[in-house]
Amino acid sequence: MAEHTPTPSVVLEHPERIPGYDYGTERAASSPLTLEDLERLKAAVSLTADDEQALREAAEVLADQADDMVTAWRARLGRQPWLGGYSGHPDGSPNPEYSAASKPRFDRWIIDACTRPLDQRWLDYQHEIGLRHTAAKKNQTDHADSLDQIPLRYVLAFTAVIVTSARQYLGARGASPAQVDRMHAAFTRSVMLHVTVWTRAYVDNGRW
Amino acid sequence: MAEHTPTPSVVLEHPERIPGYDYGTERAASSPLTLEDLERLKAAVSLTADDEQALREAAEVLADQADDMVTAWRARLGRQPWLGGYSGHPDGSPNPEYSAASKPRFDRWIIDACTRPLDQRWLDYQHEIGLRHTAAKKNQTDHADSLDQIPLRYVLAFTAVIVTSARQYLGARGASPAQVDRMHAAFTRSVMLHVTVWTRAYVDNGRW
Repeated sequence: MAEHTPTPSVVLEHPERIPGYDYGTERAASSPLTLEDLERLKAAVSLTADDEQALREAAEVLADQADDMVTAWRARLGRQPWLGGYSGHPDGSPNPEYSAASKPRFDRWIIDACTRPLDQRWLDYQHEIGLRHTAAKKNQTDHADSLDQIPLRYVLAFTAVIVTSARQYLGARGASPAQVDRMHAAFTRSVMLHVTVWTRAYVDNGRW
Repeated sequence: MAEHTPTPSVVLEHPERIPGYDYGTERAASSPLTLEDLERLKAAVSLTADDEQALREAAEVLADQADDMVTAWRARLGRQPWLGGYSGHPDGSPNPEYSAASKPRFDRWIIDACTRPLDQRWLDYQHEIGLRHTAAKKNQTDHADSLDQIPLRYVLAFTAVIVTSARQYLGARGASPAQVDRMHAAFTRSVMLHVTVWTRAYVDNGRW
């Protein structure tokens, strides 16, 4: 991160102004999951009340780094030419308008993953995010010219980059090693919870 | 880990003697993935040559702890009664024979995840593991009386427990904090690579 680009204040303070960010609105999908399903998934990732507190603390550390994180993740994706058609035009050539349109939502996801209560609104918007990775809804929000789904394997595999790279950002504001460990474990659990719920959009209920 | 149960030597030294452990044999499934698919997934999780070296070092740290790790993971699963039917009998009651039969393979997976070359044999056995979580092959290896698949959402969600809990084991043998970080990141990438490949058994190729 030679050049530091602070996270834009609209992402942090007025996410409702981000185009296509439909958290808590009627434009978001309705999740097929129940709140009981969610409780079971929280138990499965082992997300505790202390983790939720650690996530609130992580949000303060990550807030002005979220834009940098997404920039770095995308740079890494950009070095894998076979992925180009998912974020670029179908032929893999860059699609700067699409990238610019989706970035504030990606930035905001980092903050949401640390701060949003795990409730019906959360379930609904996570399902919306899942659908936006599949042929059901990809490209619609931004009217983008791009391939019509991101294969599930790349969504899952890239999770490794998100959770491993998060550690350096969590440690970049002077937290003790023990506190970095605590925030990093909580963030990992939260990310896996999110990604797991997104996969519902890819998989028939009988197998999911 | 009040009581320390060393990993049995057969797991470490003679895995070919573990019943049902079909790594590198003709009994393992044939993976539908190509070696090029695998190279792309390695890039997607960002697994580098240095990570592969860090995994070899992690294997030395984890070797005599693998059995403890699986014991601890299963204890956590055991506190989620709605999961009981996947490892126990279909009604959720314990199935000690099935648990005992599958444990050496689970222990060995930890070692394999740190040491096995990522080649065709690796692809084939990972697909076999994936199938053994689904209705295609669950219970067959051990002739077990148990539910016939583990829903994908729990396989994915539990990955968070595997990768977060691994940190304490990686740090339990005196490695420096920087070395624990290095081994933990590599282990996380390896686990996500494995789990991603397992999901192929759940998902039609067009979406996967």
